[in-house]
Parts: sequence; structure tokens; C-alpha cells
Amino acid sequence: MQHKPIKGLAWDVGAISTAEWRGVRLSDVLAYCGVTNDTAAANKLQHIQFEGLDHDATTCYGASIPISVALNPNRDVLLAFEMNGEPLTRDHGFPVRAIVPGTVAARNVKWLGRIIASPNESQNHWQQRDYKSFSPEIDWHNVEWRSAPAIQEMPLQSAITSPGPNTKLAAKQGTSEIEITVRGYAWSGGGRNIARVDVSADDGLSWHTAELNPDAGANQPYNKAWAWTLWESTFVLPPAVAAAVAAKGETEVSLLCRAVDASYNSQPERGESIWNLRGVVNNAWHRVPIRVVASE
Amino acid sequence: MQHKPIKGLAWDVGAISTAEWRGVRLSDVLAYCGVTNDTAAANKLQHIQFEGLDHDATTCYGASIPISVALNPNRDVLLAFEMNGEPLTRDHGFPVRAIVPGTVAARNVKWLGRIIASPNESQNHWQQRDYKSFSPEIDWHNVEWRSAPAIQEMPLQSAITSPGPNTKLAAKQGTSEIEITVRGYAWSGGGRNIARVDVSADDGLSWHTAELNPDAGANQPYNKAWAWTLWESTFVLPPAVAAAVAAKGETEVSLLCRAVDASYNSQPERGESIWNLRGVVNNAWHRVPIRVVASE
Repeated sequence: MQHKPIKGLAWDVGAISTAEWRGVRLSDVLAYCGVTNDTAAANKLQHIQFEGLDHDATTCYGASIPISVALNPNRDVLLAFEMNGEPLTRDHGFPVRAIVPGTVAARNVKWLGRIIASPNESQNHWQQRDYKSFSPEIDWHNVEWRSAPAIQEMPLQSAITSPGPNTKLAAKQGTSEIEITVRGYAWSGGGRNIARVDVSADDGLSWHTAELNPDAGANQPYNKAWAWTLWESTFVLPPAVAAAVAAKGETEVSLLCRAVDASYNSQPERGESIWNLRGVVNNAWHRVPIRVVASE
Repeated sequence: MQHKPIKGLAWDVGAISTAEWRGVRLSDVLAYCGVTNDTAAANKLQHIQFEGLDHDATTCYGASIPISVALNPNRDVLLAFEMNGEPLTRDHGFPVRAIVPGTVAARNVKWLGRIIASPNESQNHWQQRDYKSFSPEIDWHNVEWRSAPAIQEMPLQSAITSPGPNTKLAAKQGTSEIEITVRGYAWSGGGRNIARVDVSADDGLSWHTAELNPDAGANQPYNKAWAWTLWESTFVLPPAVAAAVAAKGETEVSLLCRAVDASYNSQPERGESIWNLRGVVNNAWHRVPIRVVASE
């Protein structure tokens, strides 16, 4: 079993990427060990726990995923031993690691030492007392960790990767129409495909629907969009921008993107509304300020 | 195969419900007909089309679902012939209908006449030119129906069912703390469980985390939460409400709810940001205005 990477566009910003993983399906290994839908139901097994070989004197890194995800061959959970055609390096989890596509990185346990089928979630710190989100009312003095589920599938997110923050865009002198190209990525958890990306240069008063790159994520199989979808939008900045540049020589513009996934989930407008004490799953609309200047 | 209903709390408002469905798994019927993951891949079959027996001179009602959903026994797609222990009535799709849990009602085709495994989606009007959402920029004069996916899994939603709009809540005379109980439901598509519901009486400045009813949806299996989750929150209205009632005899309060699902998807704050020409998948925060009055 192999996960192919989605080749990226040239990147102007950032250091994230996709990779090609090769390994064995966890569902095949579990079947070999006698763990199937039937035996799991008979023994009330609900979670697959992973334990890493990285540990201090008292504990190791550990996490778990729902057994229905582990046993579902369509979810493509791998015990991976190769990355990009080479054996895993130490930093990437040699000799073997879990790859759980569509699921938060914290459950993709590296340096795998043990796999446990259990009625219970991993009791590890990072499963029980970290990587959870709460209401904005909850802070460190009143948090009840058990009240929220451990993050598994991630929510929908998108980001502008080009232009970068504070880029200067030079407008031709005297022009009344300043064109811009904005690029970025979008991704949703659980394999949900990206349905649409909207870009705005006027704080959401008007939107430009981006082109989704058919060679970089837009054509992934239904509910198996494990990799990002890259997008691009070229449009003319609002007339007020050209007017401000003509009058003052330069102006600031805030670029904004937001995505919609195939379940028609959307991203929250403001980070304030989803504030949470650990600062996780912040998927608010992404904003990048740029400067538009008159060219000499 | 049977889907059990989730019993509801007493309802003060509304006429929606859950039901118990009995039938055969579509995946078993497809296997009997030779349609499996392997034969589907070999024949490039990507969709299961349903045709209803309801038709006019030229066309019938029809829709399709991705074949990966139809073939996945965990998705519990049924060809149902009983509802709540009785044969289907005519209004509910006698003699047999599709039940596709977690998926928009439009694909739960009634009065089933034909099932087609195909490389293509249903070409029916309601699959191709309806039940899709677009950017707010798209209107009837510029819509390109092909540019958006047909709604399948629905996004996260929640609603306040009690108190109803414009309910009068009587505060005890002279009281400085006015307590209220707010109830409702929450639901997300694709079987995603409800993680949390927040309720506000001050336009989102502060939030009260609701109790999710363990007997009415809160304990559904992971990613198989086909039914709603009922919730309830009892809290003291903001001091400004009691002050306004003391000063003026009555005041208006806007109650607000929003849910979070197990993928940490959230609902959009404002309907304006997700406006679309067909008015579908509007899952903005739900608001209910009530009047708080001084009791005699």
C-alpha cells in the first residue's frame, strides 16, 4: 500500500509539503492478528493504541485512533517504513510509523514500538490532556479535559502562500486596473474533498472563486482527499485600491481566503469566535496584508 | 439491518423527528449482483444511481451517491421497506426507498424503481441543477451548475427548539438573577458526532456549554451519529437583562446557539457570509428572540 504525494506548485512561502508513503495496511496487520469487525465487536474493542519507542523514565509518547478507522481499508491507515522511496529516516520515525491520513499529526505515531487493540482510548497525556478544543469560556483554571473529544479528523482549513505578508505589489503608473494573482492551499480532515476556495481583497464584501489545480489535489477520489488542494486566483483589485495608489503613492490591502469542503463545511470568519486555551484547530479565514505601490 | 430512532425530549416547537428503519443493506444487494470494490474498480463504476417510480411524461425523480458510500457497510445505506415497525406508507416511499444516513434527504430516493451502478453521477435535474451551493457572487444569471458538487454529506447544524420565538419569560419581581433553560438539537453530516453545543444570551460575548443528552444522541458510535443529539442548557441571563426588566418592565433577549462536531467543524457566524442562490446549506448560528417581562 502506498500513498502518492500531490506535487506542489512553486512555493513562495512556507515549508510544508506532501510525501509518498509506503508500508502495509494496518487493517491487514490487524486481520492477521485476528482483529476484525466481528472480533472487535465481540470483545468491545473500540480503539487502536500506538506506543512510540521515544520515552523518558516514566512514559512514552502514545496516542490512539478509533478502531473503525483502523479497520476500514478505505481509510488507508498505514504502518509505513518508506518515505519518498527511501527507508524512513530517524526524524521521520524509523523503523516504522503510523500514517493515519485525514487525521491530526499527533495520532501519526513515530518510532512505533507497540500496537494495542483496547476498549479504551490511549491514556497518554497527549491523547487525554492536550490537543483538545473547548469553548472560549474555558481556561486553565476551569478546564475539564474529559469533556472534549481528542482531535482526530481535522476541520477544514486554507491559507494564502503567495503573495507573502507585506509583499510590495508595483502597479503600473496611471493604471486604473491593478491585477493580482493569489495562490495557496486548502485541506479538510477525514479525506473530505475541497469544493471551492474564495478569495477577497475587500474584507469579504466581494469574492473571487479560485481555480483548483487538477494536478495538485482537485481530482482526488471522493472522501479520500488525503493531500491538500492547491489553488490560484487572478483578479483585478477593487477600484478604491487604484485610486488610493494614484492619490497617495501606496496603500495597504488585506487579502483573504476561505475554503468550502464537499460536505459544505465552511471556515469561521474570526479567530475570536473559536478561541480555545490550547490554541488548536484555529481555522479562521486567512488574512495576508500586502502593500500596493506606484511603480517609478 | 435496522436503524433505531433516537427518542426525543418533549418538544415545544417544530415537527421534525427520527424514525426506525428496517430493510436490507444496499452493499449486500450490490454484492449479490456482483458489484464489489473490485468489480467497481475494474469497470470504473463510481456512482450508484437511484430512479424513483414517480415521474411525469418525460422524466422521473432520480439521484445518485458515491459508490464508495454505497459499498461501505459502515455507512449503513439501506433499501428500507419498514418505518417504525410498519410497512412503509405511500408518503414515506412504499414499497421500498433508499435510506442514506448522514446524507442530504434528496439522495434518499423514495418509491425506488431502479438502481444503476455507473461511471457517472445521475444526470437528473435534482442532482445536476439543484441542491448545490455557490459563492455569494454567483446568481441565476451567471451560475455554472457543473462548477459545484452535488450536496451529499451535510454540514454541521444546530437549532434552539425551546423557548420558541417571542416567548415571554416572566422574571420574579425584584430578582437580580433570571434563570433560563434553553433546549435544542445538533447534527452533522457523514455520521460525525456532536462534540459540543454553546449557548449565548449576549450575542456571543459569553457562552454556556450545553449538556448533551446521553439518551438522545450523545452516545452514538464514532462517525455513525446518524441521528441528532439533543441538548439543554440552564443558566442565568446577563445582569443587564435583569436591570432592564427592573427599569422598563420588559426587554428583548436574543438567544443564540452553535455546535461543534467531532472533526471540530464549526458553524458560520452570519448567514450573509454563506449566502447562495438556492438558499441551501444555511447553517449559520441560530438566533431566537424572546421577551423577558416582570411578573405581576
